[in-house]
Amino acid sequence: MELEVKILRITAGGKRIAILDDDTAANLGVHSGDRVSVTHSGNAMIAIANISKDIPKNRIGLYEETAQTLNLRNGNMVEVQLAQIPESLTHVRAKLKGQRLREKDITNIVRDVVERHLSEEEISAFLTALNIHGLSMGESEAMSRAMIETGKTLSFGEAPVLDKHSVGGIPGDKTSILVVPIIAAAGLTIPKTSSRAVTSPAGTADRVETLCPVNLTIEEIRETVNKTNGCLVWGGSLELAPADDLFIQIEHPLGIDPLLLPSIMSKKKAIGATHVAIDIPTGAGAKIKTMTEAYLLASDFVDLGKRLDLTVQCALTYGEQPLGCSIGPALEAREALTALMGKSPPDLFDKATSLAGVLFEMVGIENGQRKAESIIQAGGAEQKLREIIEVQGGNPKIMPQDIGVGDKTSTVTANQSGRVLWISGESIAQIAREAGAPREKGAGVVLKAKLGDIVKKDGDLYEIYAERDSKLESALTLATNLQPVVLSRKGEERMILDQVPGKSVQEKTFIMER
Amino acid sequence: MELEVKILRITAGGKRIAILDDDTAANLGVHSGDRVSVTHSGNAMIAIANISKDIPKNRIGLYEETAQTLNLRNGNMVEVQLAQIPESLTHVRAKLKGQRLREKDITNIVRDVVERHLSEEEISAFLTALNIHGLSMGESEAMSRAMIETGKTLSFGEAPVLDKHSVGGIPGDKTSILVVPIIAAAGLTIPKTSSRAVTSPAGTADRVETLCPVNLTIEEIRETVNKTNGCLVWGGSLELAPADDLFIQIEHPLGIDPLLLPSIMSKKKAIGATHVAIDIPTGAGAKIKTMTEAYLLASDFVDLGKRLDLTVQCALTYGEQPLGCSIGPALEAREALTALMGKSPPDLFDKATSLAGVLFEMVGIENGQRKAESIIQAGGAEQKLREIIEVQGGNPKIMPQDIGVGDKTSTVTANQSGRVLWISGESIAQIAREAGAPREKGAGVVLKAKLGDIVKKDGDLYEIYAERDSKLESALTLATNLQPVVLSRKGEERMILDQVPGKSVQEKTFIMER
Repeated sequence: MELEVKILRITAGGKRIAILDDDTAANLGVHSGDRVSVTHSGNAMIAIANISKDIPKNRIGLYEETAQTLNLRNGNMVEVQLAQIPESLTHVRAKLKGQRLREKDITNIVRDVVERHLSEEEISAFLTALNIHGLSMGESEAMSRAMIETGKTLSFGEAPVLDKHSVGGIPGDKTSILVVPIIAAAGLTIPKTSSRAVTSPAGTADRVETLCPVNLTIEEIRETVNKTNGCLVWGGSLELAPADDLFIQIEHPLGIDPLLLPSIMSKKKAIGATHVAIDIPTGAGAKIKTMTEAYLLASDFVDLGKRLDLTVQCALTYGEQPLGCSIGPALEAREALTALMGKSPPDLFDKATSLAGVLFEMVGIENGQRKAESIIQAGGAEQKLREIIEVQGGNPKIMPQDIGVGDKTSTVTANQSGRVLWISGESIAQIAREAGAPREKGAGVVLKAKLGDIVKKDGDLYEIYAERDSKLESALTLATNLQPVVLSRKGEERMILDQVPGKSVQEKTFIMER
Repeated sequence: MELEVKILRITAGGKRIAILDDDTAANLGVHSGDRVSVTHSGNAMIAIANISKDIPKNRIGLYEETAQTLNLRNGNMVEVQLAQIPESLTHVRAKLKGQRLREKDITNIVRDVVERHLSEEEISAFLTALNIHGLSMGESEAMSRAMIETGKTLSFGEAPVLDKHSVGGIPGDKTSILVVPIIAAAGLTIPKTSSRAVTSPAGTADRVETLCPVNLTIEEIRETVNKTNGCLVWGGSLELAPADDLFIQIEHPLGIDPLLLPSIMSKKKAIGATHVAIDIPTGAGAKIKTMTEAYLLASDFVDLGKRLDLTVQCALTYGEQPLGCSIGPALEAREALTALMGKSPPDLFDKATSLAGVLFEMVGIENGQRKAESIIQAGGAEQKLREIIEVQGGNPKIMPQDIGVGDKTSTVTANQSGRVLWISGESIAQIAREAGAPREKGAGVVLKAKLGDIVKKDGDLYEIYAERDSKLESALTLATNLQPVVLSRKGEERMILDQVPGKSVQEKTFIMER
């Protein structure tokens, strides 16, 4: 049936919505919530039908984003039909029954996810089944390829193209802001794209944005890489592996991450990387809790990398406490810049130079970590970062104190003297988010003591930064409840961590980062 | 934040939608797709926020059904906030990890499903995990109780209140239209509520609606039961176990049915039944394929019944072919009425009297089937059905030929002589739906030969009825592809059912009925 387009200036968070008059819908056999196919000039899309008595009979109301999908304008004529059930739904149902999927079934599903032919409920069921059953390596490879094929890809040429990625989990992991300039200063190509925070107080894109713009176009990214060998940009608008973002939106509230491997590998392949160093923080405070788990994940990464023609080296890194002292976009940017200028917390310095060293050794440069150390000490990494900042549109002369942080602060002090026994990264991250991070870039936490440090009674444990008083207050209240830093005076104290039945059952925070 | 209500005459298939101006949304910290809580006069609801530039700043646009939830009118002032993550999501995530849920966790989840606090994706993940992991009997009991508590309940007093239910799966199962009058004629109470078809060509509510109204209010149902001992009504608007309907909407496209037991038992308990006969059609053409599966399901029903203080008797019934000859609402109503008037296909007569007999014996009346047979033969069941029809608002004098059926018909004939070896109920059902059933009540199929019957070349196999030529044509095309009736002349023929690789891989239809 042919209907005339009427554009409605409403957004629905990505869903494709079409409004039909109730008689029109009845004639098409469409009920509210059914899918309809909308075709114009040979291009088709699927949208969810809502029924209205206020729409004229021969019109179809399209939400703004929906109309944009086919570049439709008011008055265009489109052909509308009740949509067929997508073939991919058959494969989704097969996976619900625990069946292994063939490569073409997976490709079909991923295409239909991107084309919005599958509903959120169907994608959710699929991801849940994957989470419970697990994926075979063949399925992971097929997922990776499908996620790459259904999006754009970039190429930075034949020469080694390096990349680094952390599976995430420890707050304060600002390592990339050091690694990229080190590698670029050595003349190697490292086009680093990063995400914004999903559950954490800061993603690399959020941190770097306090130094310079990160939402660069593909042309601007090429220019930056051409001029400096590297970049530190947000990858979200490049349309690389768009299926990944759609999956993450559904995985996140469910607290599951069945596609961790294909998600990361597809994005690296799509950006044109040839050599990837994967940081796997391991420990109580990280996403990966034990070395056994870490070894298994690492070998899966290497294996999947081989299948996708990517050279992968994994580093299992210390994950028992936050990295460095600062947590929050602006605070972390300050700490990273200060580190490159010569004054760094030891753990941040060691991790950044180690990972840069891993990358160097992947392309045949020996004594990688030492090389990385000397690049920092000679000032080459700081200079390179400032070059990148300038080309990306920021002020190359920026100093740490120029980076705005929250002016509403409060320090939490020790109620006894002792040694820092335990810092809950999860709790520190929650406090930083309660204080306003990452939306309020100047918010966060600065640790005044790390594991093993001795603290006197009334000594500083950590300082909370916020941009608004209300945020500071609720962060302080949360801090009092969570008690993220645990001190011990004598060995025997504090052996009881909690009791059941007890005050409350604490839900473990789900960590989702990319 | 206080906003003024503006009602939009749009329906979204049950979802609760609220439209906010983009500045208002930013102030509330709300993005498109987030959940907001809307409070008015002490009552609150959750809705999904969509953002629009066309809504005035201090207004909130509510879809019609959404506004009705709190009885809101244009101009009402409501309080709007970003909604908190529901506690039930924690329990959903636990089930995704395979953990067994406690009764209060399940109650929490079901409440939040009914209150729309959980999104469709979250419910979908929950159902998928249940489907893969299965439910313990304790969880089934908790689900049943929670589904009952979150809806209305009825009571028809202390005396035995009988009910009958089929798990479904074979087309043409019009048994209830005979069983209810038989039981009611014997002076026993049987307030039968039924559903409309979900995947089949006809549900009991669709069949009976061709005889009299079925959308009765609770008062009208009580009146019918008071006057006649029974009723044949649609249960959908009584708000019994509303969570069940929400679950079914999501289960259906996914082809899963993890809550079959609590779904059926909660509805029976909510309607006030004390004794329930459950028909489990078993066989190749049914939902339950083998006797082993049927025995397991049946003992689960009896077990769950005990826990819910319901006396349950299961009958495993023949499920190799459709029941009777007619498939489709009006055609089946004709066949049922004709059967009570003295002319019945033998399988329908035997099944109806057997099941009525099971119910009689559950309340201590011996020789139940013989009693049921004599009630039909004496005309008591026909008279009772006509009483029920009259009180429910139909014409008590209605004759089979008065029930309108499709006037566009075509008979499919045998291309050889032989004995009927196999009738695919699934295919017959698909053909009936293609012909227009159940939306077009007069559409369907009438079988001219049943299993074991001998047919001559060019003899009638089945007749397709439709209300529109286009429907008749596509049903005939489908019939040619599906070949639902298989004949055999000699034992050795037709031993090959299909080949792989072959013409096509047929997807087995998922049967969901209540």
